[in-house]
Amino acid sequence: MNKNSSNIMALVPNTSNKRETVCIFGTGDFGRALGHKLIQAGYPVVFGSRSTQISSLIPKDAEVLSHAEAAQKAAIIIIAIQRQHYNFLTSLAEVLRGKVLVDISNNLKINQYPDSNAEYLAQLVPGTKVVKAFNTVSAWALQSGTLDASRQVFVCGDDIEAKQMVMDIVRALGLTPLDQGSLLAAQEIENYPLQLFPMWKFPILLSLGLTAFFFFYCLIRDVIYPYVYENKDVSFFIAISIPNQICPVLALILLALVYLPGVLAAIIQLYRGTKYRRFPDWLDKWMLCRKQLGLVALAFASLHVLFTLVIPIRSFVRWRISSQTVSQALNNKTEPLNTTKAWLSDSYLALGILGFFLFVLLGITSLPSVSNNVNWREFRFVQSKLGYLTLVLCTAHTLVYGGKWFLSPSSYRWYLPHSYMLSLIIPCIVLVVKFVLIFPCLDKPLTRIRQGWERNPQYSE
Amino acid sequence: MNKNSSNIMALVPNTSNKRETVCIFGTGDFGRALGHKLIQAGYPVVFGSRSTQISSLIPKDAEVLSHAEAAQKAAIIIIAIQRQHYNFLTSLAEVLRGKVLVDISNNLKINQYPDSNAEYLAQLVPGTKVVKAFNTVSAWALQSGTLDASRQVFVCGDDIEAKQMVMDIVRALGLTPLDQGSLLAAQEIENYPLQLFPMWKFPILLSLGLTAFFFFYCLIRDVIYPYVYENKDVSFFIAISIPNQICPVLALILLALVYLPGVLAAIIQLYRGTKYRRFPDWLDKWMLCRKQLGLVALAFASLHVLFTLVIPIRSFVRWRISSQTVSQALNNKTEPLNTTKAWLSDSYLALGILGFFLFVLLGITSLPSVSNNVNWREFRFVQSKLGYLTLVLCTAHTLVYGGKWFLSPSSYRWYLPHSYMLSLIIPCIVLVVKFVLIFPCLDKPLTRIRQGWERNPQYSE
Amino acid sequence: MNKNSSNIMALVPNTSNKRETVCIFGTGDFGRALGHKLIQAGYPVVFGSRSTQISSLIPKDAEVLSHAEAAQKAAIIIIAIQRQHYNFLTSLAEVLRGKVLVDISNNLKINQYPDSNAEYLAQLVPGTKVVKAFNTVSAWALQSGTLDASRQVFVCGDDIEAKQMVMDIVRALGLTPLDQGSLLAAQEIENYPLQLFPMWKFPILLSLGLTAFFFFYCLIRDVIYPYVYENKDVSFFIAISIPNQICPVLALILLALVYLPGVLAAIIQLYRGTKYRRFPDWLDKWMLCRKQLGLVALAFASLHVLFTLVIPIRSFVRWRISSQTVSQALNNKTEPLNTTKAWLSDSYLALGILGFFLFVLLGITSLPSVSNNVNWREFRFVQSKLGYLTLVLCTAHTLVYGGKWFLSPSSYRWYLPHSYMLSLIIPCIVLVVKFVLIFPCLDKPLTRIRQGWERNPQYSE
Repeated sequence: MNKNSSNIMALVPNTSNKRETVCIFGTGDFGRALGHKLIQAGYPVVFGSRSTQISSLIPKDAEVLSHAEAAQKAAIIIIAIQRQHYNFLTSLAEVLRGKVLVDISNNLKINQYPDSNAEYLAQLVPGTKVVKAFNTVSAWALQSGTLDASRQVFVCGDDIEAKQMVMDIVRALGLTPLDQGSLLAAQEIENYPLQLFPMWKFPILLSLGLTAFFFFYCLIRDVIYPYVYENKDVSFFIAISIPNQICPVLALILLALVYLPGVLAAIIQLYRGTKYRRFPDWLDKWMLCRKQLGLVALAFASLHVLFTLVIPIRSFVRWRISSQTVSQALNNKTEPLNTTKAWLSDSYLALGILGFFLFVLLGITSLPSVSNNVNWREFRFVQSKLGYLTLVLCTAHTLVYGGKWFLSPSSYRWYLPHSYMLSLIIPCIVLVVKFVLIFPCLDKPLTRIRQGWERNPQYSE
Repeated sequence: MNKNSSNIMALVPNTSNKRETVCIFGTGDFGRALGHKLIQAGYPVVFGSRSTQISSLIPKDAEVLSHAEAAQKAAIIIIAIQRQHYNFLTSLAEVLRGKVLVDISNNLKINQYPDSNAEYLAQLVPGTKVVKAFNTVSAWALQSGTLDASRQVFVCGDDIEAKQMVMDIVRALGLTPLDQGSLLAAQEIENYPLQLFPMWKFPILLSLGLTAFFFFYCLIRDVIYPYVYENKDVSFFIAISIPNQICPVLALILLALVYLPGVLAAIIQLYRGTKYRRFPDWLDKWMLCRKQLGLVALAFASLHVLFTLVIPIRSFVRWRISSQTVSQALNNKTEPLNTTKAWLSDSYLALGILGFFLFVLLGITSLPSVSNNVNWREFRFVQSKLGYLTLVLCTAHTLVYGGKWFLSPSSYRWYLPHSYMLSLIIPCIVLVVKFVLIFPCLDKPLTRIRQGWERNPQYSE
Repeated sequence: MNKNSSNIMALVPNTSNKRETVCIFGTGDFGRALGHKLIQAGYPVVFGSRSTQISSLIPKDAEVLSHAEAAQKAAIIIIAIQRQHYNFLTSLAEVLRGKVLVDISNNLKINQYPDSNAEYLAQLVPGTKVVKAFNTVSAWALQSGTLDASRQVFVCGDDIEAKQMVMDIVRALGLTPLDQGSLLAAQEIENYPLQLFPMWKFPILLSLGLTAFFFFYCLIRDVIYPYVYENKDVSFFIAISIPNQICPVLALILLALVYLPGVLAAIIQLYRGTKYRRFPDWLDKWMLCRKQLGLVALAFASLHVLFTLVIPIRSFVRWRISSQTVSQALNNKTEPLNTTKAWLSDSYLALGILGFFLFVLLGITSLPSVSNNVNWREFRFVQSKLGYLTLVLCTAHTLVYGGKWFLSPSSYRWYLPHSYMLSLIIPCIVLVVKFVLIFPCLDKPLTRIRQGWERNPQYSE
């Protein structure tokens, strides 16, 4: 090597031509898959196992030794065994002193043990540097190389240097390490792969509850009432007509619920005269799941669009139109065009189309890869300005469509108003309050509060 | 620590068990939020403030000192104060010498000051290493942890080492640093969060202008003309019929405008006989906003699809079909099936469906996360081959649909041709020129020019 | 620089205030574009060229020297020349000793040479450290800065230190390096930019084959048969009616083919009593292209939805409905509502809508940016549970729609059953086998096998 490059060498000291040996305790599925990947990435791998006999499943280039011997060969030891078997590590305490132990274990249930596996390990073998990592990656994904699911590896640990060493290995495997802080975060990291859409729980439960309520509500009004009073069997309404009432109602209510917490927060801030006090817990939680609420609302809106567009193909609708036309022909009369009706019909359709279009736009901008490419101002413009416009258009769509029923007494069956009327309550409240809030007498103090001004400053800077 | 791991230590010298102290000047919203995050990530944080009295809002583990004392404790000082108050830093010049100053400030308007805040800071306190960073992140996003908007932190600075230190902090906070070069880039970085979709401005203004033009054009032809000559009130056409003329017309024109600059560029290159001369400025700009033009075109196409699919639900359409049927029945005649009409109707619908389908495919591949996963050849195949196929299908769809009007004199009202005819001009030009360009006598020299050949080489290698 | 920051310096030794000089051999398009970018990122750049005369196209701040002189100035030499001209490098062997040579070349065909260009280079100039990189980036993208296509730069090489140096440069240019291991990977990296959707080949060829088969099948049954026996010309069915038979049939068959390999794998594992033996090669390949199969199925399903929704606008359909109504009116009879028919029509529509909705949901979660944000359990929940639900809904949709034809002899034309019947074969097999597999007597041993249990353990741990 000539002079020229030797001084470069000095500038890149944290790499060398040979990567450090990594030791893996345990030769199960995940241990083997990880060993295989590490060897591919250029790390010498040594397995620590009870039986040092080499199985055909263990990667060829790996060594298999007893636990103690293997541990001595490496500074990093990946513990690919289950928490129940951690006990035997106490006997190796002397060998493990000062080593980096990587806890990759997962539990079967959320909060299965009072302490996290990683903290348990750290307390079991003091004098070691425990790092939690790799538990979010599946053995199958590692082996097949098709990491369709997340490439993110959460890493936490108390020793920054040890954490850095583990994060370098993660990067070398083509994965993305995410530093989650100290070992206290291990509990959360261990719970992560067991979670099933935690942010979606509330929106989905809420919408299921509302769906059930409106289903029975519509069933009573639209199927049971005509059966009782007119002896008409329209039970087939259950398939399309009733879902097509539930979907728009839920879409509108959920969309309004996305903007309600913002309006409530503004009222609370105006009332308190400061932004430096925490919102009540329920409001905080509500605000954090607004995106999910909005996407569930979009799902209902999409279903509503599909249910509406198939209307003319429905056998029942074809029969109804055809029999109306036949009766007109038989009565020898032609109806003139009702311009008002044409206006109403066309405007609620146009409002609905525009509202749905903007709604889909909002949905697209909430895709992670799209929202990563806009700046904060653009994101707020889309989610706030376009969002309110969507709400206004959808509310107007419902008002124009359902408005005619407000004054007609025949639309109250068993004193139950039409579901459209119920769906308008929350959106109208949100829009009215929002409209009031943009009056200068309220908007000015609110803006000042949000910039840090306090009406009764009780916290000094 | 035993021998084994100590030699690893030497190989990872740029981490230590303790992270370096970070100093923050200013205890406003952003300063506190950043301090909070830094403490979470394991950095000792010290605030520099006029009043050293600890406010309840300042993170608990942070120290609050006078500016001078705080500055002495750290090598990196984050300046979380506004440009107007930078002056007082001159008095600290001695303490700040050699330190890394991180300018995180934003302005209220684009190009508010002649120089960027970071350059102003560097000139104000010479002897320091100024790095611009963090200005694209919002305090709210930092605090709530919901970084839905961008995780990207643009970093620039003249001192590479200082920049590296700041980028390490950015990474430790779970954000993605993007090195933008020297401090000259600060102006652009400071303007970035104030931008509102700059690449979209031209496509959106253009489409708004065209929308307005075609709206009045259609209004005159389709609403005012029948009112004047036939005294028919079809004002409700404004809601759906006219938008459903504007949308396809704009979709087609904008789609053609996506491919027009490529065709123009080819002509210019053929004429000049070299690719080594810059295109005119307007052509360069046009080529850079092709993606946005295409997406706006897709938006209009989607609206066109929705407006078309609701046709059979429209009150007016139902009335028209029903009255036609009734009059047929009253006149006691049944019309036979017109096979030509059936062919025309079915083919323009099929062409439109296929064109729209490919158009949506193009839209999906322009999503950042999708286009990141294809190689250059695949990207060009989709955007060029599939793109032209889309244009051909959409033009054919319009030709088959609107073709019948070309020869009928009744379709010229007040000498105004149908809007479909206007919409076909640009797409047909693009397709004809493109068709001419794929003839070997033109394609061969063009390919050679694009590979670097020059007809009149005036630039030597 | 005061004491405080000097000890920080020591902790960040791998950066310095001046970046190392990079040498580029060759002044072609890519060499110049790369040189330009490197200068922007702060690297001093020196070009090695046959003629050292400075061309106006070479970036201003770059030096142009003879190859030998240029090489002496830098530790990293980027070889921006074509493989055919590598020979002259042998004469520079002495100067190049110990240097890092970056091979950025691409071929014109997949596997054009028996060995990769990078390996050829390494064998040609021994004593150098060859790194493969940058071949996936286009000169045009580098120059224009619009890296819409991939920012990923695959890097491979036998020397870890050299690879690290190249990866640092890649990062400094704002690109993402991906370490692909040793130089053996070069062949694959060189083939990558020449690939055209390799994973999509099989699904697309399969669907094209099936499309052709079903097209002629439907043509015979629906166009030729009525022409021969009833002398009816319904050739316009080719535009919409027949595509709308092909699309749902293909969507259903392809969707079933996504789940068939999983079912086959379960049977094989149950039969073998172990999961530790490789599946046959065809099954492995099939499992790896399930995502692509599913997306092609979704494309056909979307086309089916569009073709279905335009039904009421079709001229032929309007004529048929109108003539039916007229004949009813002329015969002076009104048909009563057929509730069974209404039920059937509404339920298959509702089933289809729900199935399509879930199908789109599956498609959205397979977007890279979405699947990166879910954990393994969530990904499997969506792709497996929701996937099977989609298959059940779509099969039920087809059964309810086409069921009536199974028993009617008139639906067998020339002994050919309706295409719907053919499409149901594979989905029904998959669903029946899956249903059998969830019985405890089969599910329990399967789960144990998948957790690592073996019926006849022949591989020791």
